[in-house]
Amino acid sequence: MNKLSTESYKGVRDFYPEDKFVQEYIFGKMRKVVEAFGYEEYDASILEPTDLYRAKSGEELINEQVYNFEDRGGRDVTLRPEMTPTLARMVAKKKRDLGFPLRWYSIPNFFRYERPQKGRLREFWQLNADVFGVEGIEAEVEIITMSYKIMRELGAVEKDFIIKINDRDFINFFLTDFNLSEEEKYKVTKIFDRKNKTEVSKFENEIEEILGDKSNVFLNKISELENAEGKTPADIKNLMEKLEKAGITNVVFDPFLMRGLDYYTGIVFEVFDTNPDNNRAMFGGGRYDRLLEIFDGEKVPAFGFGMGDVTALEFLKSRDLIPEYISLTDLYLCILDEKYTEFTDDLAQALRAQDINVVVDYSYKKIDKQLKNADKKKVPFVICIGENEVKNDKFVLKRMVDGKEFEVSRGEIKTVIEKI
Amino acid sequence: MNKLSTESYKGVRDFYPEDKFVQEYIFGKMRKVVEAFGYEEYDASILEPTDLYRAKSGEELINEQVYNFEDRGGRDVTLRPEMTPTLARMVAKKKRDLGFPLRWYSIPNFFRYERPQKGRLREFWQLNADVFGVEGIEAEVEIITMSYKIMRELGAVEKDFIIKINDRDFINFFLTDFNLSEEEKYKVTKIFDRKNKTEVSKFENEIEEILGDKSNVFLNKISELENAEGKTPADIKNLMEKLEKAGITNVVFDPFLMRGLDYYTGIVFEVFDTNPDNNRAMFGGGRYDRLLEIFDGEKVPAFGFGMGDVTALEFLKSRDLIPEYISLTDLYLCILDEKYTEFTDDLAQALRAQDINVVVDYSYKKIDKQLKNADKKKVPFVICIGENEVKNDKFVLKRMVDGKEFEVSRGEIKTVIEKI
Repeated sequence: MNKLSTESYKGVRDFYPEDKFVQEYIFGKMRKVVEAFGYEEYDASILEPTDLYRAKSGEELINEQVYNFEDRGGRDVTLRPEMTPTLARMVAKKKRDLGFPLRWYSIPNFFRYERPQKGRLREFWQLNADVFGVEGIEAEVEIITMSYKIMRELGAVEKDFIIKINDRDFINFFLTDFNLSEEEKYKVTKIFDRKNKTEVSKFENEIEEILGDKSNVFLNKISELENAEGKTPADIKNLMEKLEKAGITNVVFDPFLMRGLDYYTGIVFEVFDTNPDNNRAMFGGGRYDRLLEIFDGEKVPAFGFGMGDVTALEFLKSRDLIPEYISLTDLYLCILDEKYTEFTDDLAQALRAQDINVVVDYSYKKIDKQLKNADKKKVPFVICIGENEVKNDKFVLKRMVDGKEFEVSRGEIKTVIEKI
Repeated sequence: MNKLSTESYKGVRDFYPEDKFVQEYIFGKMRKVVEAFGYEEYDASILEPTDLYRAKSGEELINEQVYNFEDRGGRDVTLRPEMTPTLARMVAKKKRDLGFPLRWYSIPNFFRYERPQKGRLREFWQLNADVFGVEGIEAEVEIITMSYKIMRELGAVEKDFIIKINDRDFINFFLTDFNLSEEEKYKVTKIFDRKNKTEVSKFENEIEEILGDKSNVFLNKISELENAEGKTPADIKNLMEKLEKAGITNVVFDPFLMRGLDYYTGIVFEVFDTNPDNNRAMFGGGRYDRLLEIFDGEKVPAFGFGMGDVTALEFLKSRDLIPEYISLTDLYLCILDEKYTEFTDDLAQALRAQDINVVVDYSYKKIDKQLKNADKKKVPFVICIGENEVKNDKFVLKRMVDGKEFEVSRGEIKTVIEKI
């Protein structure tokens, strides 16, 4: 018989219960924060018409990174590489019925065809939280505050990360003097976007290719912004002050920050890990007031962010913040002989009716093997059912963490489990 | 500007918050039941190597219904149409480290290329719960009990559904006299599987094509089983008795029940809606003791079931059991003028620190529009912030369900919200 491989597809993950536990821990912190700010959960299919991404997601994503294919009916479909186009589509579709401001979140999965590496896989999950219908800086303050709070909920201290902010309009503003075509302007933002991953000389050459001998003037103006504190633009200063009032001080202005996606229109931000071994963008977001235009020509102010599970997990690992696995099962019942099964099932059913999660070992293996399995599954309490238990309806409740035993009657099991 | 469609891909769903709420309600009931029985959550990627399904999932699924394509590296990949092969792969991979009995569950999504119709879509979610390492009928009892309990948790009464059970070995047992090839036997199970959807004469003709003039003898033997109570096979009788002891009496034996998938080896079951307008299988499961052989040649006893969200939703709709939307947000803060924003933000932050979920309306629209939005989002309480509130730190808390108003100080908000 031909043996089949047990490997998953390249660049995706299997989530064994202990992995799923950590992922749910991260998702739980995300949910807690965004729900505290009144965000409602939505979802959609991972499969979308490819056209949805052609308009605004950026060439690199569509041409090199998406998983797209023809379905059996000849439709060009894509496994979503990000959520914002889907979200914009859904909001545009029911715009007349939805109430604004509208706050939505989701924790969907995405696919991108990339070379798998640390912190980057072909499939990842990502919290997306977006607010529609808020024109003012309040949206920026709220979303960046939530980003900050999620990091704190995950156990990070302020010095573990830094929040970089910029306004994509600056670059356009400074470029107005240079008489460039839209395409040339677009190219400049792309060069900026790659700046962190590019050598200085190469970066300067690329800018010079487009701006010619005026490139120095342009670059000087941009970096003046960064270095001269007095020159920080008013909207950035305002945002930083408001964040400071909310207790968030690890914020810096970075005029070179662009973020890759084409639909951003104003303020963008990115959260960086300050670990010198891992100094890179973990996640971020921005304003995209014009994205909904692609559906019906109408603008809707929008600001949102996305935070992926792979980078969050890497961060937690590097800071030793991964929580220990906790079983949701309260009690493990071992059976000493098949003739006690019916009694055990009755007991299990009675306890489940009291909201105790009970697992029964029907393997009829030797008792030490059953105990070992209870230990492996990290179930905190064990009761073994044998002749005495059936006769007297009295039980020995064993606490697995220290082996301590408690004699209990049937009616006491719930109370003792909850107390100790 | 070319306008983009707001439609989703055909046969999949957008989940607006009210839809997501209902889906999470169903998932919550599923989780509650399986966790009470000690099942641990796992997950995996929706993308799998196509080879995984070639071995055991059945020809129809692979050739006509799966979404498969070549990735950019030339690998043949499939959007999973079911979970069992993935689960078997994961269990086989770490078999030496995992403790048995092993109880796992997951609520993944699947894709099947089918003509979208009532109760059947191209993408659906499905609870999968499986127990490995239990050879005896205890596994069947437990899984069928969980199926029953989920139906009851969702609000069904016993007469709303019926549980049909069978043993796939019967058909093989009765076929031993007919000297058939494996392929012919396989064809007979497929004809049985389609019986409910086939006219009687066509069904009989199909059987006759394979069994010749002995087909009558064969069919008579099978239906004798069904009709003569005394002849119910011992293992089915045993299972039905044990279920009855657990309080489950809506169980019948159906010797024609097969379930489509090729990997089932013994007992199979299906839960049917008894609604005469909707009399069809909603979900089911079975034993597949030999599936893990495809990885390493070793058997592992296994029994599991899957319950989809689309059929569950149709059932709830037909029985008027869909719950009303409940907002997770506790309080909606309206702002009467921009100058009160800072005060409002401080109040919101203080309440969130007390675990109250607070949303702030930064639209600065007229107050009736803000109240209308709070109502649309079904947030149960509203406070409006204006001059008086800022001056006195006293608030009017409005209960939206009846418009009743309560005067509260800052410190009283949490208590009053939780009490009323």
